[in-house]
Amino acid sequence: MSGIAIHGGAGTLDRAAMTPELEQQYLNALSAAVSVGDRIIQQNGSALDAVEAAVKSLEDFPLFNAGKGAVFTHDKTHELDASIMCGKTLEAGAVAGVQGIGNPVVLARAIMEKSDHVLLCGNGALKFAQHIGIEQLPESYFHTDLRWKQLMQVINEEGTFLDHSVHTDPPDKKFGTVGAVALDKHGNLAAATSTGGMTNKRWGRAGDSPIIGAGTYANNNTCAISCTGHGEFFIRAVVAYDISCLMEYAGLSLEDACRKVVNDKLVKLGGEGGLVAIDTKGNICLPFNSTGMYRGWKSENSEIITAIY
Amino acid sequence: MSGIAIHGGAGTLDRAAMTPELEQQYLNALSAAVSVGDRIIQQNGSALDAVEAAVKSLEDFPLFNAGKGAVFTHDKTHELDASIMCGKTLEAGAVAGVQGIGNPVVLARAIMEKSDHVLLCGNGALKFAQHIGIEQLPESYFHTDLRWKQLMQVINEEGTFLDHSVHTDPPDKKFGTVGAVALDKHGNLAAATSTGGMTNKRWGRAGDSPIIGAGTYANNNTCAISCTGHGEFFIRAVVAYDISCLMEYAGLSLEDACRKVVNDKLVKLGGEGGLVAIDTKGNICLPFNSTGMYRGWKSENSEIITAIY
Repeated sequence: MSGIAIHGGAGTLDRAAMTPELEQQYLNALSAAVSVGDRIIQQNGSALDAVEAAVKSLEDFPLFNAGKGAVFTHDKTHELDASIMCGKTLEAGAVAGVQGIGNPVVLARAIMEKSDHVLLCGNGALKFAQHIGIEQLPESYFHTDLRWKQLMQVINEEGTFLDHSVHTDPPDKKFGTVGAVALDKHGNLAAATSTGGMTNKRWGRAGDSPIIGAGTYANNNTCAISCTGHGEFFIRAVVAYDISCLMEYAGLSLEDACRKVVNDKLVKLGGEGGLVAIDTKGNICLPFNSTGMYRGWKSENSEIITAIY
Repeated sequence: MSGIAIHGGAGTLDRAAMTPELEQQYLNALSAAVSVGDRIIQQNGSALDAVEAAVKSLEDFPLFNAGKGAVFTHDKTHELDASIMCGKTLEAGAVAGVQGIGNPVVLARAIMEKSDHVLLCGNGALKFAQHIGIEQLPESYFHTDLRWKQLMQVINEEGTFLDHSVHTDPPDKKFGTVGAVALDKHGNLAAATSTGGMTNKRWGRAGDSPIIGAGTYANNNTCAISCTGHGEFFIRAVVAYDISCLMEYAGLSLEDACRKVVNDKLVKLGGEGGLVAIDTKGNICLPFNSTGMYRGWKSENSEIITAIY
């Protein structure tokens, strides 16, 4: 068995602001990301390569909040978070608050493979990237008019942003993220997540995306998980590892573990969002407790499926 | 029932380099930290206040690697990590790579209580501290001759540092950390951890200390945990939350869960270190798989006990 599942963020999606043309752009981007990861798996490649490639594809798509098209911080910069984990070795790499890196997931993997560390932050992470030859891109690479408009809107509404959903065109909200999970034909699981974080974020805020156990987790004994949502709640609930533990220690199925964490525990805590998950048998779950989640998936013998609501 | 347990770091401690006078200094500092936390608990204060006060006391003691006396980074600065979690509300606060903050645990608690966030990093975290009136201290506050000597020694041995224990006077090694866990008379648990990280660290490296679920976790359903050790392994093993899950989902006692994680799973992964733990009944565990761990504890009706090896 093998399979792959990806997401482009979950949250309060405003259907009224979505046009058929725009919806098709999102679905095409999701489909392309599943396809690039699936191709690697079909060629007997590793789950790690598949999730990295899928997330890279999502980072490059300017409408998702990661890599190119990431949201602006309060200081009008882009501070990017990402992480990746290998279910076979439990090796992991993560980066928080890095600027100028077009594909933070590639940097996260380099941290895993070319350093003795798991998590590098801020300017130090950029220095490491330069040290190993990853190109630093100018801020202009990350700029999109949409995200600039969102920043201006949020600054105008300062203080109320966290209390209601933001209406923009196209529809988006505060917690955009991208991520992927995969099971390869060798039975290995992997997960990766990448984000620009919250529009107008300040104070070096990091959410769950760079946190192994919270936003990302993979373990060949159980499952691979990539989360998207209100990161603070996902950190406090250690969401990704919680699903793994419910399977390993409480004997729950992937589906039951996902439902318990996303639709019960997170809801009680007040945490909006969702995740994509795959287990060692190739079962795929894509639960969310918000109005929508950009998502796509492909089981071994199925077609690529994509959905938003 | 109530109780408190603290640590001042675990690792390969060199007994030959320890003098009786120095050992007494360590034990006195550990005893003082337990005492300051215990006093709060005995006066019906909160576990959260107790762990914050105990860690603050350990941060102020120049021989422990946290706050004053933290190790030097490669750039000859001090980049501090800390986190705190409340077992009653599952609220948490954490800071990674902050400079100029004498008591990072106090900042972590302020992030928990005065921001909408859990984790703030680097310069942004310093700006938040200034925003809420926490004093920025000059680098000279953090300087100790011991840590400077250790940095010079490591730079001289560059490249070999990670491969063997470092002999200095007094005995210390690469993974110093401080932390505390407590159960108060209201039945609430809390945990806190603080560190200067690794001597000669670069690239904005953060270990497990600022990671909720890895270095710090508290939940009134199970236990409170503060870790110390080779942080990368503690992140990959999601150590603190793993113990909580083994209790909640697999029905293990605190002692059995601690033994499984510290003396079995971490050893297999190659992760050296230990942790302090307390459960809802006031049971205290202080497991470590290294040659020693600076530690102290007090159960409801016991005296204060301190130990190193």
